[in-house]
Amino acid sequence: MKKISILGSTGSIGTQTLDVVRMHPEEFQVEGLSAGTNIELLIEQAKAYRPRKVSVSRKEDVDYVRMHVPEGTEVYYGNEGLIEVAAGTDADTVITAVMGSVGLTSTLAAIREGKQIGLANKETLVTAGHLVTALAQEKQVQIIPVDSEHSAIFQCLNGEQLREVKQITLTASGGSFRDLTRQQLQHVTVEDALKHPNWSMGSKITIDSATMVNKGLEVIEARWLFDLPYEKINVLLHPESIIHSFVEFQDTSMIAQMGNPDMRVPIQYALTYPQRLPSPASSLSLSEIGTLHFKEMDMERFPCLKLAYECGKIGGTATTAFNAANEVAVARFLKGDISFLKIEEIIARVLDTHQSIPSPDLEQIEQVDKQVRDIATSL
Amino acid sequence: MKKISILGSTGSIGTQTLDVVRMHPEEFQVEGLSAGTNIELLIEQAKAYRPRKVSVSRKEDVDYVRMHVPEGTEVYYGNEGLIEVAAGTDADTVITAVMGSVGLTSTLAAIREGKQIGLANKETLVTAGHLVTALAQEKQVQIIPVDSEHSAIFQCLNGEQLREVKQITLTASGGSFRDLTRQQLQHVTVEDALKHPNWSMGSKITIDSATMVNKGLEVIEARWLFDLPYEKINVLLHPESIIHSFVEFQDTSMIAQMGNPDMRVPIQYALTYPQRLPSPASSLSLSEIGTLHFKEMDMERFPCLKLAYECGKIGGTATTAFNAANEVAVARFLKGDISFLKIEEIIARVLDTHQSIPSPDLEQIEQVDKQVRDIATSL
Repeated sequence: MKKISILGSTGSIGTQTLDVVRMHPEEFQVEGLSAGTNIELLIEQAKAYRPRKVSVSRKEDVDYVRMHVPEGTEVYYGNEGLIEVAAGTDADTVITAVMGSVGLTSTLAAIREGKQIGLANKETLVTAGHLVTALAQEKQVQIIPVDSEHSAIFQCLNGEQLREVKQITLTASGGSFRDLTRQQLQHVTVEDALKHPNWSMGSKITIDSATMVNKGLEVIEARWLFDLPYEKINVLLHPESIIHSFVEFQDTSMIAQMGNPDMRVPIQYALTYPQRLPSPASSLSLSEIGTLHFKEMDMERFPCLKLAYECGKIGGTATTAFNAANEVAVARFLKGDISFLKIEEIIARVLDTHQSIPSPDLEQIEQVDKQVRDIATSL
Repeated sequence: MKKISILGSTGSIGTQTLDVVRMHPEEFQVEGLSAGTNIELLIEQAKAYRPRKVSVSRKEDVDYVRMHVPEGTEVYYGNEGLIEVAAGTDADTVITAVMGSVGLTSTLAAIREGKQIGLANKETLVTAGHLVTALAQEKQVQIIPVDSEHSAIFQCLNGEQLREVKQITLTASGGSFRDLTRQQLQHVTVEDALKHPNWSMGSKITIDSATMVNKGLEVIEARWLFDLPYEKINVLLHPESIIHSFVEFQDTSMIAQMGNPDMRVPIQYALTYPQRLPSPASSLSLSEIGTLHFKEMDMERFPCLKLAYECGKIGGTATTAFNAANEVAVARFLKGDISFLKIEEIIARVLDTHQSIPSPDLEQIEQVDKQVRDIATSL
């Protein structure tokens, strides 16, 4: 039986992780759960899975939660509470599915305690890939990606040698606006943007799919997860999201991972690796799908992806700036404060003036993150 | 440096195997070559690769070959010569690319000497899968498939557990006549049949692709290579032959192997496994291909495939009968003796009356093979 903690248990990845746990009650024991402000759902989860520790964002929610969770479940709050759930339990594996840069310190704390990481927080590697991978190597902790694209690459590398990889290709559905021209993008609404064609996801990531920022963050993550230079990381438009990503080896043989879009599959794989257990996901029928399409990525149509590659190659705090500028811009777009195309404009303007600090420590990363958020809010 | 022998060095697989050797002269040393009657090419190969032993089909060719091969190359002939090249050299790996049932005894001889097998002779497993796999297990010999479909499955299973496989799917281009109805098939010529859409292969296998007998033989081979029941082996029409085959695991995750159709890739993999070396094959560009199509296999349109599954499930000598009947029928079709649709009729009529012998020994297999050939010649 594997013991797990989930950071961000009430979000999209968190609830699907608990779906997987529910289907294999004999395989998993939940040690810790952390939530933000959705405390009713957290209480429900605590009743169902009886974790030793739970954590919420706000101090003022603690008493209420404490009154409703089962006896024996300790309640924590804030960043320290998150770290308690990440590193202060008997969990073997921690699923890091909190959104935003808050995931970084808790992930580092979990790695420091030697816990395996099921990584679903993009910012962890985007802002501090050099720190996280170095610590994971030191502690001999394996970071297993939960994202469908990175899980695909991870699976394609099973039994293979990284030095024999010629290139990897992350597929991209193209997001909600893949068929629109840049001209047409000027008039899109928040509502339009939230209709993702293939995946059911949170609103921030759905917008990031439409801007292709999401794929840019994935490219940066892939650089750290698989220790590959950016020149070996490609992006390909594949509207059906059936081939989740693939690897080409130096003998030109390509290994691809495919399936219906269902996040429970990569989540379960991160929990059971190197084993594979039965899944309630439906089997893919290629004959029912009939046709798969592929199209070269157009960096002019999706300038945020180009910016991501540029930041990635610069390194240092450039990727932190990219991410922070985007988080603010997306939040502003979702509030109706700015137009869709203004998102990329804000990112580009932030990066234009950003002086990257090479190999930053945590403090420098946090400082840049904060500075950039201030700038991006004012643009 | 790996030492190799090639059975069938002047055929399509044999010459491409030597192409691979030529590209990696520091990796391979050729110990033995066997040919049929193309003795000029064999002599040329012997001069280029300086094997210790060569073999030809006919005794009357021996003197001529001996006069022209380099000093130090011994010349053999017939079935014994083939066995000498297969088992009587220092080769670590033997590529078995002779056509027809003659490949069986030499393959068994090589396995008995503990040599790894790069299997390109279909009949070996189709007629004597139970004997070959048992001997390979006893001698701890790995049989690595050269066929693109089986190589794909083999590659997809890298680092995975066979017990976690839900099903495997062999893709089929559909062959030269994939777009014709059964009505239209009545009037096709030998010339039409030899135009395979994707792969450049010998004439026998090109006809076998058009009748789908080839895929049927591959299904039977897969049963032995991967120790899977027929219920877990599927065939899918995929006209572009880009996805060479794929595996679905019990978590519904699918791993596929893809590439441009180029036999040098699976040949090289069989020689270098578990390593992958650079290949002169061209990299696949999915964006250039643009679209991949998939269609359910129609067993009424391709009755030979249905017959193959039926034979496979019966087991024993049924698959030997299937293969022998087909070999005779194809030879008769290529000579202009019978029509295209008569091929399947001959196979079906042979199988209608065949009484399968369970777990046959070599002698019984040879006897059935001979009897069926006589019947198939007379139908």
